[in-house]
Amino acid sequence: MGGEDLSRLYRDYIDCLNRQDWPNLGRFVADDVRYNDAALGLAGYRAMLERDFAAIPDLRFEIRLLVAEPPQVASRLWFDCTPKGELFGLPVDGRRVRFAENVFYAFREGRIAAVWSVIDAAAVAAQIGRAP
Amino acid sequence: MGGEDLSRLYRDYIDCLNRQDWPNLGRFVADDVRYNDAALGLAGYRAMLERDFAAIPDLRFEIRLLVAEPPQVASRLWFDCTPKGELFGLPVDGRRVRFAENVFYAFREGRIAAVWSVIDAAAVAAQIGRAP
Repeated sequence: MGGEDLSRLYRDYIDCLNRQDWPNLGRFVADDVRYNDAALGLAGYRAMLERDFAAIPDLRFEIRLLVAEPPQVASRLWFDCTPKGELFGLPVDGRRVRFAENVFYAFREGRIAAVWSVIDAAAVAAQIGRAP
Repeated sequence: MGGEDLSRLYRDYIDCLNRQDWPNLGRFVADDVRYNDAALGLAGYRAMLERDFAAIPDLRFEIRLLVAEPPQVASRLWFDCTPKGELFGLPVDGRRVRFAENVFYAFREGRIAAVWSVIDAAAVAAQIGRAP
């Protein structure tokens, strides 16, 4: 798969997340997916995403930057949302916060096999007036 | 410039940082470089790096993942170091900490014109026993 095809596949994956189309998640994510070096598996990955949407009812994944070099993709995601309670251990409590996630994916046979994510929790802390 | 050339240029840039070869930084970084959407400029970028090495005498940039799609590069950097005092506002005080930085670069005419970085400060907080 070339870089353009991989970019298109990644955008379809993000659309799947934004639709909360969990029955189709396995089209994009491998059964044995690893997340930040932990063996999460597809079921654990789906459960993580479902928890995220439960905690952040207006959660939406927006691609700001996309770099594809098969079999790897890197994406800068942007979030502008109002989490209900705690987020990253911070008491957001319904306030509007904006933050980035810079995330890498390794694809294998057209599906995400590993994810390495860093989320800008410090930006959220600053927006709700918390020192680090 | 193709993806392989851009990857090589990026590795040379990281070598330049690890050598603290500041007179050559301008070979890799544009005069009007932006960092996380702020107009830092080459002088400000160099000053930031010099402050980082002053605060972390054993600072070393290690490339864990590299994704190049001209004119963009994404890199997952790994740090294993002993900062002297505070790091990201956290009282590390000479303890050993390990953390990642997921960072995007936009190149223009063979030099870095913009950087979007997210550092895993939460990992550092956890390693020194601090809640978020």
